[in-house]
Amino acid sequence: FNAAAKDAAVAALTAQGCTVEVSDLYAMKFKAAATTEDITGGVKNAENFCYAKEIKLASEEGRLADDIKKEQEKLKEADLVIFQFPMYWSSVPAIMKGWMDRVLGFAYAQEKRYSEGLFKGKKAMLSFTTDCPESVYSDTGINGDINVTLWPLQNGILNYCGFQVFDPQIFWDPATGSPESRRSMLEGWRTRLQTLGGEVPSYITEHWLNKNICNTIENMS
Amino acid sequence: FNAAAKDAAVAALTAQGCTVEVSDLYAMKFKAAATTEDITGGVKNAENFCYAKEIKLASEEGRLADDIKKEQEKLKEADLVIFQFPMYWSSVPAIMKGWMDRVLGFAYAQEKRYSEGLFKGKKAMLSFTTDCPESVYSDTGINGDINVTLWPLQNGILNYCGFQVFDPQIFWDPATGSPESRRSMLEGWRTRLQTLGGEVPSYITEHWLNKNICNTIENMS
Repeated sequence: FNAAAKDAAVAALTAQGCTVEVSDLYAMKFKAAATTEDITGGVKNAENFCYAKEIKLASEEGRLADDIKKEQEKLKEADLVIFQFPMYWSSVPAIMKGWMDRVLGFAYAQEKRYSEGLFKGKKAMLSFTTDCPESVYSDTGINGDINVTLWPLQNGILNYCGFQVFDPQIFWDPATGSPESRRSMLEGWRTRLQTLGGEVPSYITEHWLNKNICNTIENMS
Repeated sequence: FNAAAKDAAVAALTAQGCTVEVSDLYAMKFKAAATTEDITGGVKNAENFCYAKEIKLASEEGRLADDIKKEQEKLKEADLVIFQFPMYWSSVPAIMKGWMDRVLGFAYAQEKRYSEGLFKGKKAMLSFTTDCPESVYSDTGINGDINVTLWPLQNGILNYCGFQVFDPQIFWDPATGSPESRRSMLEGWRTRLQTLGGEVPSYITEHWLNKNICNTIENMS
């Protein structure tokens, strides 16, 4: 279903005249683990290897591995980045976390974060499937409000990097539904993408998220 | 520093007569990505491949890849699991997320979760380094309370699987401090481990977490 959601997005955005670049991580056999191999020409401090520091230096000196550089080039051109994934254990699958660790590493900076983040002016959105119904992630559900679960991804990564964050696109348990319900989910996704230009990516900034998290906590306590 | 923290834990626990097994994921070159190769003898539904379903079936039929089986054997024996890592982008590094996706996949079940989770009776703890001071993760800090950030890991994974969760062991920015401050952090860690038998792993269950999250939200709104 994630492949179908990706195809629907490519078609809907292309129809609007957007240029769409897809990074299919599994097809690319994208390396997930952050290692010294990500830095060409040797690391500065092998004895006390600190990935964040080394990748930042390497980035300034143009010594990042080619697969990282290629993804960073795509990011540079992008106005909108959509992360399409099946939710695994309350987060993105490891291969996508690897993309974040390795490709976004250079955007991690104490002095340039949140509203001053490196990707200021760009927009981002999480689009994902779960294998449970919406009710388990409601503010009275057993897992708590989905917004609490998404906080590290949406605030700690996307907002931190300066992205304006759209409301997430969530496909609740497409596998269990009928073919008709899946078609209808995809149709809703296409429609949303057709009108995304009119949508304000204020997911984090308006504290809508915070308000909802608080309701969740109060209901759980 | 994470290696030193791991060594300190092994020494402190061994001295108490515990048998300690270490899985050093980078040294093992642990495969992070969840793929069809994790299932031996072919997948059931290649056309609509669903990792969670396939891994569950494969687990029941003993058809999981050897590296997953080995880690599951260690888990079976364990009374306490400590996850030692440098925090990357508000979470575990991709290679450790890969361990969670692949090794814990069989523990994901709608009918056996939280207090009925597969690892009921076992204890777990996150132990990690950050490269920022504690103040940025306080309830009035720019990143919000650390407990919000840890929620998907501690509740969505550990508590979901049935683990009783200890308070996290957090090493705040060891790289920036003096050698003396690092020694003192490790000493505190050793002392904690020596008295862990008397500590109650009530991190999630007592809603202490929830109370703190709510304070954070109120301060941010």
